[in-house]
Amino acid sequence: MRTIETIQELKAWVKETKGSGETIGLVPTMGFLHEGHISLVNKAKAENGRVVMSIFVNPAQFGPNEDFDRYPRDLERDQRLAEQAGTDVIFAPSAEEMYPRESQISISAGALADVLCGAKRPGHFDGVLKVVAKLFHLTEADRAYFGQKDAQQLAIIESMVEDYNFPLSIRRGETVREEDGLAKSSRNVYLSEAERREAPLLQQALQLGKQAAIEGRDPVSVVRQYLDGRISGEIDYIELLSYPALAKEIEGEAILAIAVQFEKARLIDNLIFHVKGN
Amino acid sequence: MRTIETIQELKAWVKETKGSGETIGLVPTMGFLHEGHISLVNKAKAENGRVVMSIFVNPAQFGPNEDFDRYPRDLERDQRLAEQAGTDVIFAPSAEEMYPRESQISISAGALADVLCGAKRPGHFDGVLKVVAKLFHLTEADRAYFGQKDAQQLAIIESMVEDYNFPLSIRRGETVREEDGLAKSSRNVYLSEAERREAPLLQQALQLGKQAAIEGRDPVSVVRQYLDGRISGEIDYIELLSYPALAKEIEGEAILAIAVQFEKARLIDNLIFHVKGN
Repeated sequence: MRTIETIQELKAWVKETKGSGETIGLVPTMGFLHEGHISLVNKAKAENGRVVMSIFVNPAQFGPNEDFDRYPRDLERDQRLAEQAGTDVIFAPSAEEMYPRESQISISAGALADVLCGAKRPGHFDGVLKVVAKLFHLTEADRAYFGQKDAQQLAIIESMVEDYNFPLSIRRGETVREEDGLAKSSRNVYLSEAERREAPLLQQALQLGKQAAIEGRDPVSVVRQYLDGRISGEIDYIELLSYPALAKEIEGEAILAIAVQFEKARLIDNLIFHVKGN
Repeated sequence: MRTIETIQELKAWVKETKGSGETIGLVPTMGFLHEGHISLVNKAKAENGRVVMSIFVNPAQFGPNEDFDRYPRDLERDQRLAEQAGTDVIFAPSAEEMYPRESQISISAGALADVLCGAKRPGHFDGVLKVVAKLFHLTEADRAYFGQKDAQQLAIIESMVEDYNFPLSIRRGETVREEDGLAKSSRNVYLSEAERREAPLLQQALQLGKQAAIEGRDPVSVVRQYLDGRISGEIDYIELLSYPALAKEIEGEAILAIAVQFEKARLIDNLIFHVKGN
């Protein structure tokens, strides 16, 4: 496995790989890998000749008061895990390599970013689209892999690909969970022991909420009641929306999503399922 | 030469062409071809295995009071001219094919669109970037060709390619002119006979302005004085800016640009040249 730090070297590898007729699968990450990332690599390996994983803690998607500086990083460990999973290339550029100048042209996620995490993290998804568009172009990937845990991100990226006819397919990976149901996340390391014991309640609450939604009851109050008094973190939002359109009117696929701010970690989780329309 | 109207058919052609190892040159146009377009095709033919020309009067780049409906169109004539020039494929989609739904994600030209034509045509360059990003992705072109007559468009597209690492090169084509100096334009057909006689004065004025700028005099007043009382059209702007940054502070390449609104045609022209900084 090669680790590439410059755009020039990446482009040379892409040219050589494409020239030999191989397809390229891209797994974009911010590193500090967990089984969720590895499951995306496995999927990418099954569908492409070569797999490139980007590891880049993207400053453009962090707000001024967010956790960019203390976002967990461990490139050596990531290299070991990525190689074990069969990754061919890690692309781990510096921020200066990715953003050598201030962007003149901006991409905006628009109304899709007005709900869920987007409403709480202004500019976050614009920053995601900025780096993702760059990575799509730099790797010339045939397929790119994103986990459903970041369901809003996935929906917004799918929209960009559709609106602008990017020549690649977005492939969805199912959320990978701990045995007790907690969604794997790089940020889980920042949970205190007590918070770690509470964290699986998010998924339990969502399961109850899903059942309620399917039965035509209000899932948001079900989730809220279940968590009330049982978690120390503060609920940021609980929302039921259509998926992937993220609209209030639901017919067909829906997402029930939650975000909870614990002391040092903000956790998100969701369930995507089918509900009948009115 | 083939004319392709659907994205599906275009993608099949691109896949086949790329698969055979050929490079693709893209000449994006709104049709009603003139020698300016043909010179871009010639350039594209010299540098690529295959040349695709898009012909699409892009509704997204016309304002509500602009000339979208009466923009000149003649596909049969365009097909003849494009084929004579050696174009391999014309891509001439309908508006529904290009925009099957309202875009969720937007691209904005930002401050680069605050000067020259952008200041007079709000949203114009956002619409240009929208269609150009789509065409770049759909054709998977190695090189795309744009004329310097639309110098602000060229600068903004170059910025998008740089900011987002599109895997293609933008190639600049020199402005092609009538014998009397008038820049070739599809909109010239809408000049009255009297206006057509006045139109070459724009280029003459710019030449005098260029000389003034190089000598350290104010080119804008030189251009304005030269045209004062000699053209019936209304001057929309005369501006000297750096190029391609389009900033007020000039050191090195500069653009002296003009736009004039005649009765039915809005003409633009420019000169790009080297000036010494202060």
